[in-house]
Amino acid sequence: MAVDSPHGLQILAVQGIPEVKPGDRISDLITSNACLEEGDVVVVTQKIVSKAEGRLVNINAEDLNARRRLIESESVRVLRQRGELQIVETRHGFICANAGIDFSNVPAGQAALLPIDPDRSARRIRYEILARTSLNVAIIISDTFGRTWRRGVVDVAIGCAGVAAVADLRGTYDALGRPLLATEICVADEIAAAAELVMGKASRSPVAIIRGVDKAFMRESSVASEIIRPASEDLFR
Amino acid sequence: MAVDSPHGLQILAVQGIPEVKPGDRISDLITSNACLEEGDVVVVTQKIVSKAEGRLVNINAEDLNARRRLIESESVRVLRQRGELQIVETRHGFICANAGIDFSNVPAGQAALLPIDPDRSARRIRYEILARTSLNVAIIISDTFGRTWRRGVVDVAIGCAGVAAVADLRGTYDALGRPLLATEICVADEIAAAAELVMGKASRSPVAIIRGVDKAFMRESSVASEIIRPASEDLFR
Repeated sequence: MAVDSPHGLQILAVQGIPEVKPGDRISDLITSNACLEEGDVVVVTQKIVSKAEGRLVNINAEDLNARRRLIESESVRVLRQRGELQIVETRHGFICANAGIDFSNVPAGQAALLPIDPDRSARRIRYEILARTSLNVAIIISDTFGRTWRRGVVDVAIGCAGVAAVADLRGTYDALGRPLLATEICVADEIAAAAELVMGKASRSPVAIIRGVDKAFMRESSVASEIIRPASEDLFR
Repeated sequence: MAVDSPHGLQILAVQGIPEVKPGDRISDLITSNACLEEGDVVVVTQKIVSKAEGRLVNINAEDLNARRRLIESESVRVLRQRGELQIVETRHGFICANAGIDFSNVPAGQAALLPIDPDRSARRIRYEILARTSLNVAIIISDTFGRTWRRGVVDVAIGCAGVAAVADLRGTYDALGRPLLATEICVADEIAAAAELVMGKASRSPVAIIRGVDKAFMRESSVASEIIRPASEDLFR
């Protein structure tokens, strides 16, 4: 199974990942179920990382006050509130609905919080795979976020290792030889979005492989330092 | 060149598309340069659609007052302004920087405006390809947008035909048999983001093919009716 050309990518869902429990090693689950290749980007949904890291709390999801307290305990600021929906800033700096807490696809009576440091989670998976297989792969931890002015949710990167979070193409030129502007491309979010297309929400495919990503994008990186917009740049606080 | 499994996608850049001029037929440029297959989703960057539709205006891009007047003439509302950057609502209802007007990758002294009705542009390309080749393909017109709280830009859909803009998975169940919430997935934006990974900003690949998209997503659709968030739902106006 080879990439057809330098201009083609493959997106493959990894099948056979079992239900993840606290203490499981995500890197083991990946290498046991996927034939990785050098340079692959492996996208892992936040939910199995949170489960493996034991980020589960007991809660009655029907108790709206308990939900709200849990969301606020994971937040540094509530930006907007409408009914059950709270748009908050998490401790990581993500601005998202309900602090990224998952009440679905977790055992009844439990909720899954975001990993404490998703970049660190990604680095750990990356280095464990490197140690076990000698393969240099990149890892993106993905989660599902809404957007301010667009309906529907998309998957974005909340942690990454080994692939550019934002690729800075400033200083390069367009097809007509003029300097490119507005060209800091959020490669990690684009890869997370692409992966979602094969993972689906209801299927048991919490891991996908993106094969053929431009080698120029492979480098040390982090979502925290590259993607999270500092308050000084924020026009919509 | 076949998809490896029902759980895999291919993303292929279409090479050889020449510089596009007003009056060119995008459907001709696609069918002359790509081996399409039934069910493909073809992503076309806004810029070549705008050029083909003659949405070019003469402007001195260094004249900041002229730039601002042009941006405002394409807008119904300015949300924020900082230096040269204006976040506006376009006549279509998109909230984006500088009304989506392109000053790069167009001939010097010109700027490219967004298509007047990108969903209609997508439908036209789709039906012309269907008429010529009898192949049922979907079309997404993509453009590059910033995000409120995340650095870096990503490609999103500004027009589509033949593939769900937003796929509504409510009423379906998670892997544990519990109803899924927050599951209106913006498939069209995820596909546009995936396509950007092979198109690059500087390469001459304004068209990409996504092969293997779930057939359940193939239906009549539009960005205007499915993705643009109505003012009544907007928490950040």
